[in-house]
Amino acid sequence: MENRVIEEIKRLIPDPKRVMTDISDLYSYSYDASFGTYLPDIVVQPKSTEEIVRLVQLANQEKFPIYPRGQATGLSGGSLPVKGGLVLDLSKMNQTLIIDPDNLVAIVSPGVLTADIHKAAEQYGLMYPPDPSSSNVSTIGGNLAENSGGPKGLKYGVTKDYVIGLEVVTPEGKVIRTGGKTVKNVTGYDLTKLIVGSEGTLGIITEAILRLIPKPPATETAMVIFDDIVDSGRAISKILTSGILPSKLELMDQASIQAVEDYEPVGLPRDAEAILLVEVDGHPLAAKDEIEKVKAICIGLGAREVKIATTKEEREELWRARKLVSPAIVKIKPTKISEDATVPRSKIPEMFKRLKEIKEKYQLHLVIFGHAGDGNLHPNIITNKLDKEEMKRVEKAVEEIFRATIELGGTLSGEHGIGTMKAPFMEMELGEVGLVMMKRIKEAWDPNNILNPGKIFPEPGQKLVLSE
Amino acid sequence: MENRVIEEIKRLIPDPKRVMTDISDLYSYSYDASFGTYLPDIVVQPKSTEEIVRLVQLANQEKFPIYPRGQATGLSGGSLPVKGGLVLDLSKMNQTLIIDPDNLVAIVSPGVLTADIHKAAEQYGLMYPPDPSSSNVSTIGGNLAENSGGPKGLKYGVTKDYVIGLEVVTPEGKVIRTGGKTVKNVTGYDLTKLIVGSEGTLGIITEAILRLIPKPPATETAMVIFDDIVDSGRAISKILTSGILPSKLELMDQASIQAVEDYEPVGLPRDAEAILLVEVDGHPLAAKDEIEKVKAICIGLGAREVKIATTKEEREELWRARKLVSPAIVKIKPTKISEDATVPRSKIPEMFKRLKEIKEKYQLHLVIFGHAGDGNLHPNIITNKLDKEEMKRVEKAVEEIFRATIELGGTLSGEHGIGTMKAPFMEMELGEVGLVMMKRIKEAWDPNNILNPGKIFPEPGQKLVLSE
Repeated sequence: MENRVIEEIKRLIPDPKRVMTDISDLYSYSYDASFGTYLPDIVVQPKSTEEIVRLVQLANQEKFPIYPRGQATGLSGGSLPVKGGLVLDLSKMNQTLIIDPDNLVAIVSPGVLTADIHKAAEQYGLMYPPDPSSSNVSTIGGNLAENSGGPKGLKYGVTKDYVIGLEVVTPEGKVIRTGGKTVKNVTGYDLTKLIVGSEGTLGIITEAILRLIPKPPATETAMVIFDDIVDSGRAISKILTSGILPSKLELMDQASIQAVEDYEPVGLPRDAEAILLVEVDGHPLAAKDEIEKVKAICIGLGAREVKIATTKEEREELWRARKLVSPAIVKIKPTKISEDATVPRSKIPEMFKRLKEIKEKYQLHLVIFGHAGDGNLHPNIITNKLDKEEMKRVEKAVEEIFRATIELGGTLSGEHGIGTMKAPFMEMELGEVGLVMMKRIKEAWDPNNILNPGKIFPEPGQKLVLSE
Repeated sequence: MENRVIEEIKRLIPDPKRVMTDISDLYSYSYDASFGTYLPDIVVQPKSTEEIVRLVQLANQEKFPIYPRGQATGLSGGSLPVKGGLVLDLSKMNQTLIIDPDNLVAIVSPGVLTADIHKAAEQYGLMYPPDPSSSNVSTIGGNLAENSGGPKGLKYGVTKDYVIGLEVVTPEGKVIRTGGKTVKNVTGYDLTKLIVGSEGTLGIITEAILRLIPKPPATETAMVIFDDIVDSGRAISKILTSGILPSKLELMDQASIQAVEDYEPVGLPRDAEAILLVEVDGHPLAAKDEIEKVKAICIGLGAREVKIATTKEEREELWRARKLVSPAIVKIKPTKISEDATVPRSKIPEMFKRLKEIKEKYQLHLVIFGHAGDGNLHPNIITNKLDKEEMKRVEKAVEEIFRATIELGGTLSGEHGIGTMKAPFMEMELGEVGLVMMKRIKEAWDPNNILNPGKIFPEPGQKLVLSE
């Protein structure tokens, strides 16, 4: 970026603390929770929609890219400044967090932490259901851009299902409002749901209206231990076709169980092939009855043991095992390639088989856990990015995981987004025309390709490269 | 349309029964359930995606418009062939209705009646929640194009919330698949949710994958009678912030009550200002407890009487009053202008006030009923389209209803769509830039303006004209 342009940016945002060009600052903005580092030319922390408008208009004039970013906890490279330019750190845009209980909505700025929305809603007996694992550290702006999921997706859906209105700065620096405070709205094209999940390529979200629901008064949790992972798959199907819709239905495979026990023994059976964690919520009488039905179904299908938590502490203890999986597996080797390949629920047993074959073929440490109830598994490859030979095998294994997912009628990404990591595989899922139709929207909205270029759409001949 | 083109269409679809050019046939395709009649040049009933592809490609070559249509029960003019050309009657595209219980999805052709999906799902203990009043006669294709709502929208959302995959013929005659069988999918832009509700302007849906949920085992219904309509509004707020999310929460005002009693006396109190119909569903114990809580809340806020149905027959009897409103009001005068202005829930009392003022100002017969729980009211003006002087007043009243809705933070359409009827008011809600961003998508996808032209986007200077 020319010095002249940098000076112009500093004139537009006359607060030296919020405009960074020091190399050490640029380095701290060069990576996210995925793979690869890319130095931006400048980092700006805007505090208002007007400041963003000015920056985007300048970017269109001077033709430099803008990379919006929350806390950069994303796993697909959505916020990486792959073509340099300006990183727009939205974490200081956190002035608004209003709960409007009469309309069952929250109004939030993009820099607000998602967990703070959870807490604010609970004070009114309400709930904002989307619960990505990162919710204590990730911003709602990032969740909106990537359409984050989480365990509660099974019953409650994902981020997009709770967004009913947006204020957005367009790629050419104009402000639009989409949707509003009403849950029903069919006035023209649904720009709200187009922009949510567009990974910052179609607009910069400066405010969002989120739908809230009454907080279910009761929750019941069970941990179910299976000797055979295929039985656990059958139990999942049986539960879901018995009239029960659990709020969470999580799975840990044997590798996950063993990783947790090596890391911090919590008494999980190392010889079990799978553990299911099932949570139901709702009316107290209903939740109690449903968790007993879940128990009966699992026992009937060969579960070794079913533990039902009777107190809040016991419930938290059961969930601790699942929460320890991520920290536990990075102790094995330092690099974790976390995928979110998602298959139709009925294909879960077949997907397990395919993953086992891939693991053996490439001799990799592959751990599977995740949101089994909605087919959104997280196969994690545990590796070391300094081991170039192994990383070559990882690249091939990742490609095969995607291929298997699509062959089984699934999708590249259930909740992490495409970013840089999955862009090379887009045509495999969407076909040439499908991708062209998406690209036409991008080109119509962002003729100068200012917002987050290098994401979602593959460059000609682009391949997944993990071995730097 | 030139004869040469008509002959070419007949060559493409070599089945004379499915290609109509007789004037009597063209007349039967010239109207829908809204306002105005427009003669097409030709009507085709395709039976396959391939036939549609051929027709759309020819349309691009010869530059004639295509108007996709289901059963034409729409209330906003979405299927009217306002620029002539070809009406594509999709009612024969009804070959597929598959329930896949393991994946909790249905796969459907656009010509399938929505009620048939309800019935098919129920046979597996599942439910397809969207329930527009027209569901016994409207096709799922029409529901998808208009993103139909219904009473269950309050708890379960609208059509769009249940669509996870589509097969679509693009405006240039190519076939794309969006989404798939997985509930979670963040692979690129959400074309599924962009196309659903785009009123046939962005593509012709030839197959859809719908998400199903376990059918709630129990339902409880209450009818609540209020002397004061403001009290009924307060009761709605109180119910929704008490942790109860009813599956339906419908309102009838005094004019609706009196219309029903004049039409077919069912014993409603003519002097009551409002009746609420509240339905809760879920676990039997929970539903019983919740309906009793609803009763207590309503009594506490001044309800005159609360009747809780104890049998299926009693439940149907309570709902009959609500179902009679539409047939009852058209007995008063022959023309019904049915609006679906939607306001944030907290603004319902204010909206009642505004509607009363509009009714008095223009001396019209205005009846209000609808989905009060989500702010989606149906103010219906009962009039006679042959009375030109009155229709002029109706035009002005409709415009004022829209203006009031938007001033209160609401939207032009909660569930009927924009079509021709509301196009003139789009900029009022969206602003100039918002409308431009929508139009850019249309232009990028449909450069020859083939699909359903004359809808959603106003022509320069277009006004609402009801007095022909």
